[in-house]
Amino acid sequence: MAGELAPAIGAEELESLIREGVPLVGSYGVTVQALGHGSVRLRMPYRDDFVRPGGTITGPAMFGLADVALYGAVLSAIGRVELAVTTSMTINFLRKPKPGPILAEARLLKLGRRLAYGDVLIFAEGEEDPVSHATGTYSIPPNRSAVS
Amino acid sequence: MAGELAPAIGAEELESLIREGVPLVGSYGVTVQALGHGSVRLRMPYRDDFVRPGGTITGPAMFGLADVALYGAVLSAIGRVELAVTTSMTINFLRKPKPGPILAEARLLKLGRRLAYGDVLIFAEGEEDPVSHATGTYSIPPNRSAVS
Amino acid sequence: MAGELAPAIGAEELESLIREGVPLVGSYGVTVQALGHGSVRLRMPYRDDFVRPGGTITGPAMFGLADVALYGAVLSAIGRVELAVTTSMTINFLRKPKPGPILAEARLLKLGRRLAYGDVLIFAEGEEDPVSHATGTYSIPPNRSAVS
Amino acid sequence: MAGELAPAIGAEELESLIREGVPLVGSYGVTVQALGHGSVRLRMPYRDDFVRPGGTITGPAMFGLADVALYGAVLSAIGRVELAVTTSMTINFLRKPKPGPILAEARLLKLGRRLAYGDVLIFAEGEEDPVSHATGTYSIPPNRSAVS
Repeated sequence: MAGELAPAIGAEELESLIREGVPLVGSYGVTVQALGHGSVRLRMPYRDDFVRPGGTITGPAMFGLADVALYGAVLSAIGRVELAVTTSMTINFLRKPKPGPILAEARLLKLGRRLAYGDVLIFAEGEEDPVSHATGTYSIPPNRSAVS
Repeated sequence: MAGELAPAIGAEELESLIREGVPLVGSYGVTVQALGHGSVRLRMPYRDDFVRPGGTITGPAMFGLADVALYGAVLSAIGRVELAVTTSMTINFLRKPKPGPILAEARLLKLGRRLAYGDVLIFAEGEEDPVSHATGTYSIPPNRSAVS
Repeated sequence: MAGELAPAIGAEELESLIREGVPLVGSYGVTVQALGHGSVRLRMPYRDDFVRPGGTITGPAMFGLADVALYGAVLSAIGRVELAVTTSMTINFLRKPKPGPILAEARLLKLGRRLAYGDVLIFAEGEEDPVSHATGTYSIPPNRSAVS
Repeated sequence: MAGELAPAIGAEELESLIREGVPLVGSYGVTVQALGHGSVRLRMPYRDDFVRPGGTITGPAMFGLADVALYGAVLSAIGRVELAVTTSMTINFLRKPKPGPILAEARLLKLGRRLAYGDVLIFAEGEEDPVSHATGTYSIPPNRSAVS
């Protein structure tokens, strides 16, 4: 699904949209590392309050990152539609990442008129095996007059 | 599964464990409203940075609440085992709650030696229909020598 | 959601709809034990080819039962809309049922114009603890002119 | 995870294991098209009783295929451990495949001592976009003395 087409939103615009328009996760300092049409790679810097007992990154921080990564993948395909909302999300925690930056690679597997579905692989920066994997569905509002 | 047995952890102890031991969500001001053996009801007060474009509570805040609610249900059955960790979680967003306090009712459907599974119904305070529903699995460490 | 309203489809009609209209699972001999408005309890008799190595009921048989149970819960609320289709399903296998009849209790947690969501508790007949738990979403066609 | 290592089970052995050892799905005529270490591609021929109202392949048939595909991916990494069992599975139905053969490409994303996790992309033969996507967890028995 990713591929030849250009992304329908710019990296800077997506970054500022996440920072200013998305609550909670907007404060995580997420940056865009790569952007396709229907795919995105985000980076979440480490923050002290992400550490869980046992010395690993807490689940809700990874969930929040996965959620905005899928949001970014959707917007990279349909443009700036801020009211696209998550309808469901499944996340599996596979390995315990050490405290440090986290990367999320999202791709769309389906883009319909009303629903988009994709998955997100999450990595500790510099490591090869994923630390978690999420799948999720976004609902696209009917009158998706792109804002910008 | 909930029922006749007494909770294996106290409400105050669970509250302080969430507040001090759980990153991110620990700052949400979550309180325990009811506690059984294998079940718990939590309340999350409203915070301005929970609001998503469109005037509804953001998904990651509800995910974080569902996660600690299931954590509480597990601890209410096995006692204070801080290193119990989420291995997977599925959340479905059903209705858009208005800005306001959120309740989460978690119950265990299985408690094994190594894995616990349960679900969480999430409500806007004062409303009858759930706004989201989560299911999830917790991994219980082998040497679950309760701490306290 | 279940409750005061009468079921929008009869038990016999639902049974024959499952038997004749649903492939694969239609041959499992599923019967309706109870029917509400947005809830249903089904019974699946034991069949030799349901047994998995280790002497337990195979996952796909329970998935098929969960799927038609949720279908039944949807139709019990909106009437005979045969083209309602599953869009997603999550199933967790909690205990290994011995070979024998299986019951499924489905209830709707949301009924929208276009999507319905609910969960299904699955039991070995005569046992108290669930053997599996499923959640799922059905898509309701836009022109839901009930057929009958 | 797939890659340089040889598969820990042969294609013919896996095929006969599915045909003879797996209930229900064993009768679907599934064949192995490709086999790696931690990955597999299966093919399920078309059968008349797979067709759902609306002229598409029924969900439970795709679930059954996804389930054995993940089973095959697990065995391709750990060898013939017949008592590996599914503990959870999430499937999303993305497009309606026309009646015809179905392919399933499974890969492991984690292989631990006790749990394996992976995903499965499902295609209508000859089509490029996936018709469904599944993720799931297999439990590996402690004494995994490979049988053969």
